[in-house]
Amino acid sequence: MRSSAGNAELALLLEVAGTPKPGNVDRHRDLADLCFEHFLAGAVGARDGLELAADGAAVGPAFERAVDGMATQDGGNTQFGALLLLVPLVRAARTELSQPVVEATVEETTVGDAAAFYRAFEHVDVAVADPPDDMAALDVRRGGDAIPELEARGLTLFDVMDRSVPGDDVAREWVRGFDRSFAAAERLAAADGPISDRTAATFLSLLAERPDTLVATRHDEATARSVTDRAAALVEADALETDPSAVEAFAEDLVDRGINPGTTADVTAAGLFIALEHEAIDV
Amino acid sequence: MRSSAGNAELALLLEVAGTPKPGNVDRHRDLADLCFEHFLAGAVGARDGLELAADGAAVGPAFERAVDGMATQDGGNTQFGALLLLVPLVRAARTELSQPVVEATVEETTVGDAAAFYRAFEHVDVAVADPPDDMAALDVRRGGDAIPELEARGLTLFDVMDRSVPGDDVAREWVRGFDRSFAAAERLAAADGPISDRTAATFLSLLAERPDTLVATRHDEATARSVTDRAAALVEADALETDPSAVEAFAEDLVDRGINPGTTADVTAAGLFIALEHEAIDV
Repeated sequence: MRSSAGNAELALLLEVAGTPKPGNVDRHRDLADLCFEHFLAGAVGARDGLELAADGAAVGPAFERAVDGMATQDGGNTQFGALLLLVPLVRAARTELSQPVVEATVEETTVGDAAAFYRAFEHVDVAVADPPDDMAALDVRRGGDAIPELEARGLTLFDVMDRSVPGDDVAREWVRGFDRSFAAAERLAAADGPISDRTAATFLSLLAERPDTLVATRHDEATARSVTDRAAALVEADALETDPSAVEAFAEDLVDRGINPGTTADVTAAGLFIALEHEAIDV
Repeated sequence: MRSSAGNAELALLLEVAGTPKPGNVDRHRDLADLCFEHFLAGAVGARDGLELAADGAAVGPAFERAVDGMATQDGGNTQFGALLLLVPLVRAARTELSQPVVEATVEETTVGDAAAFYRAFEHVDVAVADPPDDMAALDVRRGGDAIPELEARGLTLFDVMDRSVPGDDVAREWVRGFDRSFAAAERLAAADGPISDRTAATFLSLLAERPDTLVATRHDEATARSVTDRAAALVEADALETDPSAVEAFAEDLVDRGINPGTTADVTAAGLFIALEHEAIDV
């Protein structure tokens, strides 16, 4: 049987291999400066941090270690958001991988976990939106420099996620019991065919539901909304089955325009981990 | 910096991603019953055994553990031969990853290492040739049942490899100081472009040099020789640069005919590990 840390690493690899995943690196597409190999190395590098979480380390330090390892490649940020979902899921799997247990896991995070989360931003450049005025001192881009302010306000990592919710659907998972991650796992299990096809179908269904928050951050809300509308039309038409070339064309178009729905990929990776861990999918 | 175990796992992933690799699973090709995902899971599963080798465990037990983990997927044997090269290389890297040190590492193997090697065959089906008559009692397909005979003859794992040489180019690496693996690393470093292209070029150059022993075992010597002749003609014409479609056609043809030069892929993976470990290539 594969360990939880192994399943989490494999989830990262299966996520990047799944194709077509419109706008993102997949088995058949690279971006200009971000290649398949960077994701392979990112997944391998994250393993030690994932092992820490599986061994019972606190969420923040395990996450920081995973990000530090992930960043040991030349592509930059490959799996920061995915790890922010996977680390608490792996930690929860020590007890039971269920929504209540992972909810308790994130609610129990401390100010120390928040500090480690801020330090993680020193290992890699992550695309984030400007914070609201009252949170400027806590801009994650300040990295460890923000820690005294964090401590003064007594904010835990859960608190930080709670304040990041509008505009960050990874943070939203933290405060909503990983709803979409567990839903993604169910879809992966219910889908047909090889895992790569299931991954593509699940990714597209997630993208069709909610505008991708990374796209909104890097471009704007209208762009994110139009991508989701297009994904929804493809899902509505069951295009992966009936007109796969339309999905491939969508994938090419997004890559050409530099539009990468990375948050949707993060949730897909979390769903893959849950499905592997529950033995609901098999490799 | 990536650990040796991490580099070895990454070498397995980069090997399978490299394309075109005529006859083998690569980023763009699956075989009928053996898919890209099986290789991803095989690499993840091997990690614990690779960690054992990096931590100083004996070569045989670390190899058995790596194979056991690799086999935790439904595709069957994905990376048995590659691990038989990687485990002693990872073990040697504790001291220094050089030909003399890896030579000493394999020469120091014991009867206990040989016993673990035989047990590894119980975890997965491996294509092997019939042994010569005086070695029938030591047919690896007997698995652990052959261990008393092994002990009676006092054969170390190095001795077993030494007796397997004609017809097994993984064993040949063991008794020739990993010559081709180190040569592959030099070619990977000297080649141009992204790692996937360097991997493809190195694979083709290795295939052009010597008939693949897995092809000879599964088919016959003549088939293996004709594959090598065709690879040699493509290398001679610098086809990866001048006529890439000819190499793609060769790849498709071998896949269609079920001809998989797996031993050449094993040596390529070993070369990738050495090049990563020496920081001669970068991801």
